[in-house]
Amino acid sequence: MKTKVAIIMGSKSDLPVMSEAEKLLRQFGVKPELRVLSAHRTPLATINYACLAQQRGLQVIIAGAGGAAHLAGVIAAHTILPVIGVPMETHALKGIDSLFSTVQMPAGVPVAAMAIGASGAKNAAILAVQILALEDKKLQQKLRAYKKKLAAAIKGKK
Amino acid sequence: MKTKVAIIMGSKSDLPVMSEAEKLLRQFGVKPELRVLSAHRTPLATINYACLAQQRGLQVIIAGAGGAAHLAGVIAAHTILPVIGVPMETHALKGIDSLFSTVQMPAGVPVAAMAIGASGAKNAAILAVQILALEDKKLQQKLRAYKKKLAAAIKGKK
Amino acid sequence: MKTKVAIIMGSKSDLPVMSEAEKLLRQFGVKPELRVLSAHRTPLATINYACLAQQRGLQVIIAGAGGAAHLAGVIAAHTILPVIGVPMETHALKGIDSLFSTVQMPAGVPVAAMAIGASGAKNAAILAVQILALEDKKLQQKLRAYKKKLAAAIKGKK
Amino acid sequence: MKTKVAIIMGSKSDLPVMSEAEKLLRQFGVKPELRVLSAHRTPLATINYACLAQQRGLQVIIAGAGGAAHLAGVIAAHTILPVIGVPMETHALKGIDSLFSTVQMPAGVPVAAMAIGASGAKNAAILAVQILALEDKKLQQKLRAYKKKLAAAIKGKK
Amino acid sequence: MKTKVAIIMGSKSDLPVMSEAEKLLRQFGVKPELRVLSAHRTPLATINYACLAQQRGLQVIIAGAGGAAHLAGVIAAHTILPVIGVPMETHALKGIDSLFSTVQMPAGVPVAAMAIGASGAKNAAILAVQILALEDKKLQQKLRAYKKKLAAAIKGKK
Amino acid sequence: MKTKVAIIMGSKSDLPVMSEAEKLLRQFGVKPELRVLSAHRTPLATINYACLAQQRGLQVIIAGAGGAAHLAGVIAAHTILPVIGVPMETHALKGIDSLFSTVQMPAGVPVAAMAIGASGAKNAAILAVQILALEDKKLQQKLRAYKKKLAAAIKGKK
Amino acid sequence: MKTKVAIIMGSKSDLPVMSEAEKLLRQFGVKPELRVLSAHRTPLATINYACLAQQRGLQVIIAGAGGAAHLAGVIAAHTILPVIGVPMETHALKGIDSLFSTVQMPAGVPVAAMAIGASGAKNAAILAVQILALEDKKLQQKLRAYKKKLAAAIKGKK
Amino acid sequence: MKTKVAIIMGSKSDLPVMSEAEKLLRQFGVKPELRVLSAHRTPLATINYACLAQQRGLQVIIAGAGGAAHLAGVIAAHTILPVIGVPMETHALKGIDSLFSTVQMPAGVPVAAMAIGASGAKNAAILAVQILALEDKKLQQKLRAYKKKLAAAIKGKK
Repeated sequence: MKTKVAIIMGSKSDLPVMSEAEKLLRQFGVKPELRVLSAHRTPLATINYACLAQQRGLQVIIAGAGGAAHLAGVIAAHTILPVIGVPMETHALKGIDSLFSTVQMPAGVPVAAMAIGASGAKNAAILAVQILALEDKKLQQKLRAYKKKLAAAIKGKK
Repeated sequence: MKTKVAIIMGSKSDLPVMSEAEKLLRQFGVKPELRVLSAHRTPLATINYACLAQQRGLQVIIAGAGGAAHLAGVIAAHTILPVIGVPMETHALKGIDSLFSTVQMPAGVPVAAMAIGASGAKNAAILAVQILALEDKKLQQKLRAYKKKLAAAIKGKK
Repeated sequence: MKTKVAIIMGSKSDLPVMSEAEKLLRQFGVKPELRVLSAHRTPLATINYACLAQQRGLQVIIAGAGGAAHLAGVIAAHTILPVIGVPMETHALKGIDSLFSTVQMPAGVPVAAMAIGASGAKNAAILAVQILALEDKKLQQKLRAYKKKLAAAIKGKK
Repeated sequence: MKTKVAIIMGSKSDLPVMSEAEKLLRQFGVKPELRVLSAHRTPLATINYACLAQQRGLQVIIAGAGGAAHLAGVIAAHTILPVIGVPMETHALKGIDSLFSTVQMPAGVPVAAMAIGASGAKNAAILAVQILALEDKKLQQKLRAYKKKLAAAIKGKK
Repeated sequence: MKTKVAIIMGSKSDLPVMSEAEKLLRQFGVKPELRVLSAHRTPLATINYACLAQQRGLQVIIAGAGGAAHLAGVIAAHTILPVIGVPMETHALKGIDSLFSTVQMPAGVPVAAMAIGASGAKNAAILAVQILALEDKKLQQKLRAYKKKLAAAIKGKK
Repeated sequence: MKTKVAIIMGSKSDLPVMSEAEKLLRQFGVKPELRVLSAHRTPLATINYACLAQQRGLQVIIAGAGGAAHLAGVIAAHTILPVIGVPMETHALKGIDSLFSTVQMPAGVPVAAMAIGASGAKNAAILAVQILALEDKKLQQKLRAYKKKLAAAIKGKK
Repeated sequence: MKTKVAIIMGSKSDLPVMSEAEKLLRQFGVKPELRVLSAHRTPLATINYACLAQQRGLQVIIAGAGGAAHLAGVIAAHTILPVIGVPMETHALKGIDSLFSTVQMPAGVPVAAMAIGASGAKNAAILAVQILALEDKKLQQKLRAYKKKLAAAIKGKK
Repeated sequence: MKTKVAIIMGSKSDLPVMSEAEKLLRQFGVKPELRVLSAHRTPLATINYACLAQQRGLQVIIAGAGGAAHLAGVIAAHTILPVIGVPMETHALKGIDSLFSTVQMPAGVPVAAMAIGASGAKNAAILAVQILALEDKKLQQKLRAYKKKLAAAIKGKK
């Protein structure tokens, strides 16, 4: 089966957070490919990846980066696939720099921004599944089951 | 042809901004339905709308709201469709309140946050088209043409 | 005696903070009920709870949540009881996201926002007691005694 | 009939905003008293007012102030009545200074913070009515009718 | 010799920071009095202290408080002595709440705001000495010596 | 009579705001000298001014500047006189840049920061008078009268 | 004479601000080339421009952009020339988004960030001249003269 | 060979961060001189250093400071050399105070601001090398090699 979701991160140090997205995708039976690609340090490889993504059969690209977080935006500039941005938490500014760099995209080139950090990485996975599920009834069922599990986890609490 | 995209807004005063999304969708030949629904003032109608959205054939829901902007999040809680949130600019806090209320969703219930204000509304439309285009080659062509038009508009400048 | 105050929290992980509200209420002889209910993960249970709160005899609802903290606002949308919101401290944004999501409610649907974190949880309890005390002279005396104790604690210091 | 709600403001220039609270209270048949009292410029009059508020029969005090907005907090220090704080929008910091000065109260002395500006003033009125309504079935009916009117206003839109 | 400088703090937990001010004053041979007085928890004692400060011979009051930090402002409202405010670092908002509550005083009632935390406490002491030194040549010499020591400490470095 | 208070500003464009300080000083019978001196554009003149200030008989220096507002800090580095900083409101960051540059001074070199803008300029004047008043009973009386006038202005209101 | 400085901007609407840089460069006898190039809308043209900049003889690139302002960073990723970033003021977030996106670059790929808006554009020009002046004695003289003119302009004031 | 780059820091405690700049410069074969000089505590030594920098043969000055970080700005006021500012992370405000104090310079006196903390220190070194490389082909080659190493490090990852 073709890989439909990519998880890109700007630095290997983002892996612990971004692997939350991977884990969740795998729970839904979606196997992503992971790449470390930097908008600033490997710009041509990043652009190359973005340009070829659609014809390689990818459907959604998740990109996590921190600070002046240009990764998701650069990828979005080079593809017509939906791009989901995960702002990494940063040391000094706590990810507010990553968030603004990810979400404040100019008209014409959207990035779907998630919450800062691990919650955002998880939600990037869910959003990717929601997009794939539009044409996949089984994923729809899994999403409904997941929503029930979320609720059950809460109800079981306390 | 079925309506696949909904544009929801928390107050009629959001219409000038959110109609930017409508206009852009129509440029792509996608005819959205517009609703004014408030997470706080018409909560049951909002939930009802969200719960029925998928079976009514909708595929993407765009929700714009300001301040303690719960609209996108409330809709996301009640559907498995992708939900795109547009944070409205607000008077005192300039939309940073809307942005945080939209983007900082807990793990499990994603909202795809766009930029604050009109750029965000436009990008919500593009992202919706990108999602629909995954199964629609004509929309893919239109998106590629749109990217070229964006570039041409820049190049024509100066 | 009827339960008049509810303490709701969006996640079981909020319990250590929200139990500060419980402890303080019990010091005043007010026995609250505690529930874990999420605006995003158990939305229908939350709404149901809010809709029935008044006829069950509740008088004040305290709701603590973090991030895109919609819990207090969602409850306020479904009840005419006073709702007190406690913004939880969050990892990246330190609770400023929770505060804005809680306090910036649109006209018509108030939430009484407290300070971020444990001080806010404690003050939610005091405010609930102040409201109940309007029709309860004993609680008034206890509040006056509590104010004296606060002062004495300070004076005893140093 | 006794005056049960007071609207205090730190400066006469706050009147246009705070009169929104007055108007809304009057819609509910609640006649407030208005006072201009400053925590910094008329501190003794402010304290005196706060100390006597309860025995004069007041039940809720709404206080609006801007900048280093100490008014609500100072009043709360001198009464056991519920105090609702409305952070005024300010010129340079847009009311974020007023919000932090109002909401970040220390444990033991709560202020119920509303949104910045006019929405906050309106919601202060609603919250005051919600508190009075706990012992007043007519006000409960009016609050329910008000919620319906809010919804109808939205539905009538667009 | 009369006590000319007071160091007031809103909570005993502020002592480790505020004692930095005390230590530095003592280095200059100025013996301050320390008090724990809270604008919210011992308001009358605070006001009483402020009202009597001048006639007791005090010349400068240093006040440290955190969160909705009203202490310096309340004291300034009740005295014509110069009041120096030290914003305490707070847990969630890191003292930005304390800073805004201290510095954004309305026209007519100044508070001399220092940096957040320990640097601010130290500088409050130096500013107090600078004020006393206006009529005290020995303190002037000590201040000049202190400036030299600061420089020497830097130069000796590295 | 000797000039005891100086009002320095970083740019002539700050004059409308800083002249509020001048006007208020003159109300108290204190005649300040005004200078336009820039920490960045006339650094040597600024330092020269600061170094000679005390021997020229000045007792308090008020410095207003915006953006990376180094003026007050640079003056404080070169004098042992009390220096009061007024953060100017700026176009983009609204004076929060000026405030942080003014107030966050390192230990050893205090600047007494006032509120952003015109209120801060006025309060700089009052603080200067409070300092001079420590050795001037007439100024003390004027300060007490001023406090009464502030209160009367409020009371006369509404 | 070869063009040594480029002024790039992300949108033609940035021209009024960025032309401040052009004007100042021309005052120093440095004739820049201006281009409208967008990191998101004409990404390949932007990269192409950056890659060829050095061999075309350029020595400094000034890049102005707003919001998720990736332009300077993208250029810096593709050249070893010094890149100066000018954060444009934006509507909602006032340029703080542009500033964070410009300045918070990851280690290895510097962008020299200037102040938000027109002051930043002017300073980008001065910094470019300072860099060129390292090998150009005439420019050094002009810079010294410019510094004198700045001072004279201040001194002539008031 | 002449020393062309200086690294100045406001306090010896900044050394661990600023030595990152030194290490990187040495990797490029550039030997900097390091100085601890404070805008506030050793102002005359700082100005003296800045005034003589150019005639001593320095070409670039890197200045790191925290809080009301005036060091880079003060140096820039006294030299026509390019000045690079590194905002130190601070305890309470996390370096946002340092950033604003460094970057928001008035028109006419630029400081090239880097990211907050260690990344900024490293990038200051790279920018200094980029400036020196304009007249040094070997440094150009080293910069190109460095860019490749950055990319290789990323590619080698994962």
